[in-house]
Amino acid sequence: MTFPEEHFLLDDTVPGTLWEPPGGDGPLILIAHGGGQHRGAPSVTGRARMLVASGFRVAALDAPGHGDRPDPVASPMRGTAEGLAERVARINAEVATRAVPEWRAALDRLAPSGPAGFWGVSMGAVVGLELMAADNRIAAGVLGLTGARHDLAATITVPVEFALQWNDEFVPRASALALFEAFASTEKTLHANPGRHAELPRFEADSALRFFQRHLPQRK
Amino acid sequence: MTFPEEHFLLDDTVPGTLWEPPGGDGPLILIAHGGGQHRGAPSVTGRARMLVASGFRVAALDAPGHGDRPDPVASPMRGTAEGLAERVARINAEVATRAVPEWRAALDRLAPSGPAGFWGVSMGAVVGLELMAADNRIAAGVLGLTGARHDLAATITVPVEFALQWNDEFVPRASALALFEAFASTEKTLHANPGRHAELPRFEADSALRFFQRHLPQRK
Repeated sequence: MTFPEEHFLLDDTVPGTLWEPPGGDGPLILIAHGGGQHRGAPSVTGRARMLVASGFRVAALDAPGHGDRPDPVASPMRGTAEGLAERVARINAEVATRAVPEWRAALDRLAPSGPAGFWGVSMGAVVGLELMAADNRIAAGVLGLTGARHDLAATITVPVEFALQWNDEFVPRASALALFEAFASTEKTLHANPGRHAELPRFEADSALRFFQRHLPQRK
Repeated sequence: MTFPEEHFLLDDTVPGTLWEPPGGDGPLILIAHGGGQHRGAPSVTGRARMLVASGFRVAALDAPGHGDRPDPVASPMRGTAEGLAERVARINAEVATRAVPEWRAALDRLAPSGPAGFWGVSMGAVVGLELMAADNRIAAGVLGLTGARHDLAATITVPVEFALQWNDEFVPRASALALFEAFASTEKTLHANPGRHAELPRFEADSALRFFQRHLPQRK
């Protein structure tokens, strides 16, 4: 099954893709990819296809320094002076700060008065934390695989589904549990599964779909 | 929507109810009620109705000392010499040990060669831990709201979905997290939500249904 796919360029610099269900209507979900990935990665397009099949519109952007963008960020794998975890955290924070105005411009274009959903894990979750703290058009977020930015989580009040990998080699378990605790949301659910950072089970995507269906109902 | 409901008596002493979808076929799910409740409590019948509407058979028993049974156990609310938490844990363990042969007799009658699912939280989860450790006909379990019996969890290898209430006034968070960690299951998912012991969100029932659909597929 194929769906209309439209590539666009925000402000002449940020490559994005919009997927739409037949008819072109439906609530908008933003999908932010992880570190070292891009908007066409299978983890993004797979989630997009599933959401579009359920009537959502989906938009993805290449993050600063990723995908088709000519402004590379340093690879966290080449760190020497600082540890890998610190380097990943610093790069994720830099990317998120640069990415948030771009996602807000995407919202202006695609869902100017909201509401929209956000879905991102790992680096994508750091982007989401900063975006959700800054823009109240995001009405629900599926985040996870990070333990960063408790300060931002404490300002977020919309429903959150948060994924934690129990044996994450990059994210200390205690930091992720504390981040979950920090969210000010009345409705927040932690989903923890065994496995390493990249081993988030596929059935969590089905759960995320149902989460968005609860919080971003289709117009009839 | 109503479904066939059959009350039965196991071994002349244990009252049970069986709900069946049209046609009377489908995988069996056992539902164990919580402390102080009974097999006709809304939390049991509501879950049964949802499962039966999706093609499962459901059986519930009154636990020892509960419901229509003439052999009351002491109420944990009347404890004086020992603390409430200790008293609840002791009574739950007593009930579970007495209940397990009864659930095995129910399996002999309703799904003698398995597989079946088990769904119980709080006291019902303590029953489930003991039953799942003893009887390999239980192929998947939705448990939660307890931090007891890590020893049994360490012997359980089938898929588990485990619910934890973040602000549970009866179950220390660390004990529930450690119980989740103790399961030997390759597939196990922790679902944590804010709120007290009795405030498990309704959407967790929908999640449990999907868990059982993944692990106990309908015969076509």
